[in-house]
Amino acid sequence: MPLMPSWIEAANAPDCPFPLNNLPCGVFSVAGGPRHCGVAIGDRILDVTAMEKAELISLADRPVLDKPEWNAVMALGPAAWERLRHLLIGFLRAKSDLQTTIEPYLHPLASAEMYMPFSVAEYTDFYASKQHATNVGTMFRGKDNALPPNWLHIPIGYNGRASSVVVSGTDVFRPWGQLKGPQDDAPRFAPCERFDFELEMGAVVGTPSRYGRPVTLAEADAMIFGYVLLNDWSARDIQAWEYQPLGPFQSKATATTISPWIVTRAALEPFRVDAPEREVPLLPYLQDSGPMHYNIELEVELTPQGGAPKVISRTNFRELYYSAAQQLAHHTSAGGPMRAGDLLGSGTVSGDTRESRGSLLELSWGGKEPLDLGSGVSRSFLQDNDRVTLRGLARGDGYTIGFGDCSGTLRPAIAPPWPAA
Amino acid sequence: MPLMPSWIEAANAPDCPFPLNNLPCGVFSVAGGPRHCGVAIGDRILDVTAMEKAELISLADRPVLDKPEWNAVMALGPAAWERLRHLLIGFLRAKSDLQTTIEPYLHPLASAEMYMPFSVAEYTDFYASKQHATNVGTMFRGKDNALPPNWLHIPIGYNGRASSVVVSGTDVFRPWGQLKGPQDDAPRFAPCERFDFELEMGAVVGTPSRYGRPVTLAEADAMIFGYVLLNDWSARDIQAWEYQPLGPFQSKATATTISPWIVTRAALEPFRVDAPEREVPLLPYLQDSGPMHYNIELEVELTPQGGAPKVISRTNFRELYYSAAQQLAHHTSAGGPMRAGDLLGSGTVSGDTRESRGSLLELSWGGKEPLDLGSGVSRSFLQDNDRVTLRGLARGDGYTIGFGDCSGTLRPAIAPPWPAA
Repeated sequence: MPLMPSWIEAANAPDCPFPLNNLPCGVFSVAGGPRHCGVAIGDRILDVTAMEKAELISLADRPVLDKPEWNAVMALGPAAWERLRHLLIGFLRAKSDLQTTIEPYLHPLASAEMYMPFSVAEYTDFYASKQHATNVGTMFRGKDNALPPNWLHIPIGYNGRASSVVVSGTDVFRPWGQLKGPQDDAPRFAPCERFDFELEMGAVVGTPSRYGRPVTLAEADAMIFGYVLLNDWSARDIQAWEYQPLGPFQSKATATTISPWIVTRAALEPFRVDAPEREVPLLPYLQDSGPMHYNIELEVELTPQGGAPKVISRTNFRELYYSAAQQLAHHTSAGGPMRAGDLLGSGTVSGDTRESRGSLLELSWGGKEPLDLGSGVSRSFLQDNDRVTLRGLARGDGYTIGFGDCSGTLRPAIAPPWPAA
Repeated sequence: MPLMPSWIEAANAPDCPFPLNNLPCGVFSVAGGPRHCGVAIGDRILDVTAMEKAELISLADRPVLDKPEWNAVMALGPAAWERLRHLLIGFLRAKSDLQTTIEPYLHPLASAEMYMPFSVAEYTDFYASKQHATNVGTMFRGKDNALPPNWLHIPIGYNGRASSVVVSGTDVFRPWGQLKGPQDDAPRFAPCERFDFELEMGAVVGTPSRYGRPVTLAEADAMIFGYVLLNDWSARDIQAWEYQPLGPFQSKATATTISPWIVTRAALEPFRVDAPEREVPLLPYLQDSGPMHYNIELEVELTPQGGAPKVISRTNFRELYYSAAQQLAHHTSAGGPMRAGDLLGSGTVSGDTRESRGSLLELSWGGKEPLDLGSGVSRSFLQDNDRVTLRGLARGDGYTIGFGDCSGTLRPAIAPPWPAA
């Protein structure tokens, strides 16, 4: 599919992340005003909350854009999503005769403050990159036990903490936690010393499913409203001590940062690609009948305080062994219902080369091979005031689909509210 | 503290679970009417939603009992909870001169339909019984690795699935999942063959905490609104194959059943007891300065289809090594915020004897010693149409505090929506 031209000129530049083909969903405010739902187009944001109020958009027999979150739209399901996209394309396409009608609802992107685009119902994090699982497994359990025996059969995942999902730009505080080195007799309670990022994508569930009723893979694919960039900040030392036998808990509880824009599944349709070859056959409930992965280029940029930004990893969402649809189908297999706003982290996206690893744990190989940032600066793990930015883009025929930066700065640990050790 | 007499005579019987000392919080309807918040007293329910509307109760500058959930009241914090309790005691105590005013807001308990008492923000399940952890660890990992090295230092927990928490009386469907025996070459997808209950209590968080701001143990204790009975249904075969390395996922996703009544922390104050002796000193952030455990007698009843109910386990909430306050303080230690309606499962409550084990896995020792139910009936794990009922009570001076039955029936696995194997 080629670029769809818009009367908003900036949207037609081949490297603009928000062409008419994209129309990602966010929540914004301008000049201290109220939070509204908005859609990015070129260098502007279209205020769809105000448009619904003015009856230029109608998706249901009640307002669904009146709250500063996209959940109500998501819950309407794919037909309504398609209708909204069709309406917006009609308003914004080149030669539309609605230009003067729409103009008052546009705001400069540069002056907008962005918020969480949706209310996260629940957050689940998966582990879908074979390269990442192998790297981490090698460091935590040795080369011979690197990939768990279930990994090629199950899209392994665990429930995370929805309340700590934050939007790009939110500061992250270095967590306190129980730390115990292999030589220590007992744990101590101290600020994390091995704090890390994880480069992920997040799938946002739109259509709910029913209690006791698993969904098929095709149904799961259709339930997904869109995708965000996702940084699952991780405390490696807390994790190493706590994670047996019930999995990561406080090591993943500090924050998870997402991009301000949800790129809809419709916008990503042209970028579907086949899954990697299966090393062992998947069970029938996980077998895909068509391409359910996406070709999305990803990068991580690290900026030390006062230093220059440096891209430290480049990889691609298509590297994953399991698609979000497979993860979602598996998620419902035991009968637990999904809700509008459930967020599924893909798992860290790591490629085959050192330069394509999606975490510092892997890039510095557990701290043994510090990563050179130039100018005499290196990193094994994050230092206070480091800024981490994830970017993602899909390259179309004369256009680019972007998510906006997914960025967060690590601030020092807070003064402890607890009694001293 | 002795019984507080009420003008509702049934509330004064020593074995009535709902004396004036209790006043537990639920959501109910009568005769197909709307769902309202209610408080149990004797053999009646007091409709506090209707009382707030009639301005007999006012807790904030806006309605907080107008939705069929207690979350808005919880979020007001301990001063409002105390105020509500004080008001209700004034209305319902013996010799109150408000009897004729209150009478219209009372409904027979027997005619009420009960619903989820609150909207579960997020659900976390802990692992706080040393006996349970030792039993399960012995079966899953052998006697020498039974208790993980971190267990005596960390209140081990993992994030569960809030969307599958259901109220007592809701049917539970035997889940499908990946099963793989130790001798099998590959997993198969089939209905769970080792489905189990877990006897737990749940702590309901009332007061929220802030992003990036851990709370002290004393603050955590004060944040807890009340307690429910909780059955964390578990698929042992799914769990055995899936849980490494990131913990239980679909094995715990089918359903978690809670009692219809939240017993408030205030009602349980007289039943506080000290923690068991610590085998190794806890880190300062987890050290309690007073009694934070509770003396609550617990039992599990199993009823086969068409058979007689049989109590198969009797234990006590005080058996746990970690209190809910310790679990909550730990839960915030890495900075993730808590919200009104967060539910913290205690972990299976098992005592020292076989008769006090809180799951079939332990009662039948992994199926090796089937549990005799009499009349030639035995169980290793649950069979279709078995009903499991949890009960809890605290015995006061001439009165009893109850939670209502926490009950669920296991229904057969549904016909598969997936392609055949």
